[in-house]
Amino acid sequence: MDFMKPETVLDLANIRQALVRMEDTIVFDLIERSQFYSSPSVYEPKKIPIPEWGGSFLEWALLQMELVHSSLRRYEAPDETPFYPHLIKRPILPAINYPKILAKFSDEINVNAEIMKFYVEEIVPQVSCKEGEQMENLGSASVCDIECLQAISRRIHFGKFVAEAKYQSDKPLYIKLILAQDKRAIEESITNSAVEAKILERLVVKAESYGIDPSLKYSQNVQNKVNPEIIAHLYKKWIIPLTKKVEVDYLLRRLQDEDEDLVNQYR
Amino acid sequence: MDFMKPETVLDLANIRQALVRMEDTIVFDLIERSQFYSSPSVYEPKKIPIPEWGGSFLEWALLQMELVHSSLRRYEAPDETPFYPHLIKRPILPAINYPKILAKFSDEINVNAEIMKFYVEEIVPQVSCKEGEQMENLGSASVCDIECLQAISRRIHFGKFVAEAKYQSDKPLYIKLILAQDKRAIEESITNSAVEAKILERLVVKAESYGIDPSLKYSQNVQNKVNPEIIAHLYKKWIIPLTKKVEVDYLLRRLQDEDEDLVNQYR
Repeated sequence: MDFMKPETVLDLANIRQALVRMEDTIVFDLIERSQFYSSPSVYEPKKIPIPEWGGSFLEWALLQMELVHSSLRRYEAPDETPFYPHLIKRPILPAINYPKILAKFSDEINVNAEIMKFYVEEIVPQVSCKEGEQMENLGSASVCDIECLQAISRRIHFGKFVAEAKYQSDKPLYIKLILAQDKRAIEESITNSAVEAKILERLVVKAESYGIDPSLKYSQNVQNKVNPEIIAHLYKKWIIPLTKKVEVDYLLRRLQDEDEDLVNQYR
Repeated sequence: MDFMKPETVLDLANIRQALVRMEDTIVFDLIERSQFYSSPSVYEPKKIPIPEWGGSFLEWALLQMELVHSSLRRYEAPDETPFYPHLIKRPILPAINYPKILAKFSDEINVNAEIMKFYVEEIVPQVSCKEGEQMENLGSASVCDIECLQAISRRIHFGKFVAEAKYQSDKPLYIKLILAQDKRAIEESITNSAVEAKILERLVVKAESYGIDPSLKYSQNVQNKVNPEIIAHLYKKWIIPLTKKVEVDYLLRRLQDEDEDLVNQYR
């Protein structure tokens, strides 16, 4: 994905390839998280007391990481969405003049709060190796959580590129649907059930391939580090629907950044 | 590995299992790094100007990450070795009273400067997908580098546990060798060529299994994300020898933290 070349970013084949590659990262990150206990203290607000912080330890640690990553220019990239957009810092690296790819309001579409919620409530308990916690691993678990959250967030917000590519590919259709604010028709237009089924299938194969030490493959009782069905379920129940939400939310607002004369032709 | 139970940590079977698991992390991290260009600007001191910093951008980014991770208590753990031991902060999490497992000088054994050097000079050019750089990916490449460096550092410094376990398993032998400062005999006593050959074999299989999208396995021209031979070579030429260096350095000093009367029996 080369964000300096908008035409390559809005090519649906390239977007698809990037999404497929992100699956690997998400599977790797969940496998890494599975080394640690569920560690509930990490997620409960104020359970671990931190001066001037009312949230959870994970949230605090994530903010610290975002402060570092923002100085590395992470959140200037159009495919990165911070959990704490109002708290991050200016980069220490010189700014990059990314060409405009997404509509100007796109930063306002941010479902990270929902990602944090389902990740903590649904994913952590299923992915971690055991319920409970080991005091000495709370930091390690959080570091893995942050990587999972960032990878999942990137995957879900990539929906903006899908939405923009679809919009560009058939403006007349979308302008009409958007003017009518026909959420259901927009959602149908971006849904491809065959592709979704394929994603789930592929995830199971990836989780099997990446989650088992291949040198032990033919031993007895070799356990997968993370149950492949859990990863497929995570996509089916959370990642795919939230990606669609991002796409629909983006499209519903798309005309805010469109030429008025063009829009008026469809009124 | 439960550092609260020294007897489990110094069990060579457990150590071996932990080392095998770390291979997965290192392979995953190198695969992630391979998405980006070699990015030489990241490694050249002062190439990217940072106020009050004479080192490279990567070094600066690594320090920022260590500052966050130290506040998460990362470097209190006996298996974590910071690259900037004099600059890190006190943890925000309450201290953990780890039982004593390693000799008290063990923090002074730190080969991170050597790890940084071979990683930057030898690994990055071979692992990255292409020579050159994309300005917009310098931060992403650095984030991956930091994960690789931390994983490799943990693997190499784990040699301290191997050394301590060996020492505990045959104190009379080691006290004599250490009193004689017989470096070569110590090195021989900790070397197991059969195990080393097995590690290299297993790494090739892992790099093949984790580095290829399994859903494409039977397509033509499927490329491995990282050449498995490069990962095996990295272990053979750098990780295994440096682990041994850590073990030998540790053992050579081991009597600094031993009962004098016991030592005197062997003088």
